[in-house]
Amino acid sequence: MAVPGRRNLRLCFVSVLICFWMAAALLSAAEKPDPLPSWNDGPVKSSIVEFVQRVVSVGTPSFVPEDQRIAVFDNDGTLWSEQPNYVEWLFITDRIKALAQGRPEWKTQQPFKAVLENDWKAFHDSGQEGMQKIYIATHSGMTTAEFETSVLEWLAKEKHPRFNRPYTDLVYQPMLDLLAYFRRNGFKTFIVSGGSIDFMRPWTQRVYGVPPEQVIGTSQQMRYELRNGKPVLVLLPQPQLICEDDGKAVGIQTRIGRRPIAAFGNADSDLKMLEWTAAGDDVRFLLLVHHTDAEREWAYDRNSGIGRLDKAIDEALKRGWTLVDMKRDWKRIYPFEKTN
Amino acid sequence: MAVPGRRNLRLCFVSVLICFWMAAALLSAAEKPDPLPSWNDGPVKSSIVEFVQRVVSVGTPSFVPEDQRIAVFDNDGTLWSEQPNYVEWLFITDRIKALAQGRPEWKTQQPFKAVLENDWKAFHDSGQEGMQKIYIATHSGMTTAEFETSVLEWLAKEKHPRFNRPYTDLVYQPMLDLLAYFRRNGFKTFIVSGGSIDFMRPWTQRVYGVPPEQVIGTSQQMRYELRNGKPVLVLLPQPQLICEDDGKAVGIQTRIGRRPIAAFGNADSDLKMLEWTAAGDDVRFLLLVHHTDAEREWAYDRNSGIGRLDKAIDEALKRGWTLVDMKRDWKRIYPFEKTN
Repeated sequence: MAVPGRRNLRLCFVSVLICFWMAAALLSAAEKPDPLPSWNDGPVKSSIVEFVQRVVSVGTPSFVPEDQRIAVFDNDGTLWSEQPNYVEWLFITDRIKALAQGRPEWKTQQPFKAVLENDWKAFHDSGQEGMQKIYIATHSGMTTAEFETSVLEWLAKEKHPRFNRPYTDLVYQPMLDLLAYFRRNGFKTFIVSGGSIDFMRPWTQRVYGVPPEQVIGTSQQMRYELRNGKPVLVLLPQPQLICEDDGKAVGIQTRIGRRPIAAFGNADSDLKMLEWTAAGDDVRFLLLVHHTDAEREWAYDRNSGIGRLDKAIDEALKRGWTLVDMKRDWKRIYPFEKTN
Repeated sequence: MAVPGRRNLRLCFVSVLICFWMAAALLSAAEKPDPLPSWNDGPVKSSIVEFVQRVVSVGTPSFVPEDQRIAVFDNDGTLWSEQPNYVEWLFITDRIKALAQGRPEWKTQQPFKAVLENDWKAFHDSGQEGMQKIYIATHSGMTTAEFETSVLEWLAKEKHPRFNRPYTDLVYQPMLDLLAYFRRNGFKTFIVSGGSIDFMRPWTQRVYGVPPEQVIGTSQQMRYELRNGKPVLVLLPQPQLICEDDGKAVGIQTRIGRRPIAAFGNADSDLKMLEWTAAGDDVRFLLLVHHTDAEREWAYDRNSGIGRLDKAIDEALKRGWTLVDMKRDWKRIYPFEKTN
């Protein structure tokens, strides 16, 4: 091998320098793109970016070590659409119809009769108790594996009545941006939802990038059983945690065990979660999504049966929490929308 | 500044090359050290290393993607000593003595009287019911924050009767090696213990590197309450999850939501956790710690009231699970021991 001349060595050295410079330039360019491209510029977007920047600024009083960067997100109405009804509720009513073949007595028994006949007035009259009966009938008596299969099969074939797309397409692109932005900045993102863990976990990793162990929700007690020598867990009618209102704070405490520094919701049922998060010391971020866009999504708040936002909006206004005006602040709603 | 001559440039280039070579050499040397330095060489140590190597080998049938590398660990007797009694039980009896000042009726009421008088025979006679009364008296009625403070204060001042050291010094160095080795290889390590989450979480991060959200244990129902305008969670007498036996599988399912690929225990109360883990497809690793070293730690198994290992050892022998013989397999027991 020929010994390289001095000129070659110099060229080589200069090339290495150029490579370093290009890599540095690329890296700095890579940092520049808009971290929240589906959000319109304005005070709401700024408040999000400013919070994240404060938390990650090493050596400042607002710096938060990475292992304490916990952010919690409600699901229905915060990460995906909850109209014309909670997706899990639509799944539940379909399950009642499927299970009814083996339960002829349901034809005459409320609230089952109401569900089978799509008589929503009669169902509504059966109140909280009726809803609980339906929930228990569809969320117990089978193994966790059987339940998971039924969820995946239903999601694979059913479409949203308005958009004619799989329900999991009806997630909010701005919130996907936000989840990714938070994770890039060292946050652990958790879902804390009134929905059941067994309904959410089969798809949250694929759709939101949130693994099952970071999904907190309503859960049932279970019985351990051997079937053909293999252990199974059978879902029981008794709840282990009802992850609504107060239950969201309880869920956070029992499943995470430390206070989040950011919480995202859209309804009165998220208020306790936001209060619990806000009660920590130091820097905190609280955000409510206000559904104001009847054209691209839905518009509802104080008088809605689903996702009622009444007390929580007053609290947000009083305490200066960030309030997303969906129509004003979101450039896109769903990932499938064409961008300009 | 003088323009450097060609000789300087060449020197500079050679220095850069030498730096690269040294860095590469250091990196490759860093990979070589024993991953489990506190384990004696032999089939047990080999089985651990072999499992990890199989799981991380990209492109082989035994490869497991990183997000599915879940390992679960019992705490008492698996990660730290549980003799002469479970540490939490020692904490509980001290709490009873401290709380007794405000509960004069305990002086004559069983099982409290027995605890106050260190009458372990009478306490034992009060059975499961007596134990539950003591547990409830010490694990409910206060806020989660108050409970945490009481745990940290107790651990800071109490010492283990045999070793005269803080209880959190009595952790097993070989298991600390193993936890770190698994995490370096992309595993998420969870504790799944019969102990209460509120007792463990204040110190598991510092001692084991396991964050609170990866600690699963017995937990109470809670009540959300405002005190001086600040939300608190008050621990209630009703359990949410009793994380023993079957409850360990239930805890894994409700808190993690996917099946672990490795499980570590030491007692019959861990058997269901190992069975549940073993029932998954593909590669699995199951390990039991057998306490065989009366000199350096304790020796107990089939007839022990604490950490009884009877059915589980038979199952381990039958199914070829890894069985640690503490005396034979562990070079050191505790981090504070002098090494040769």
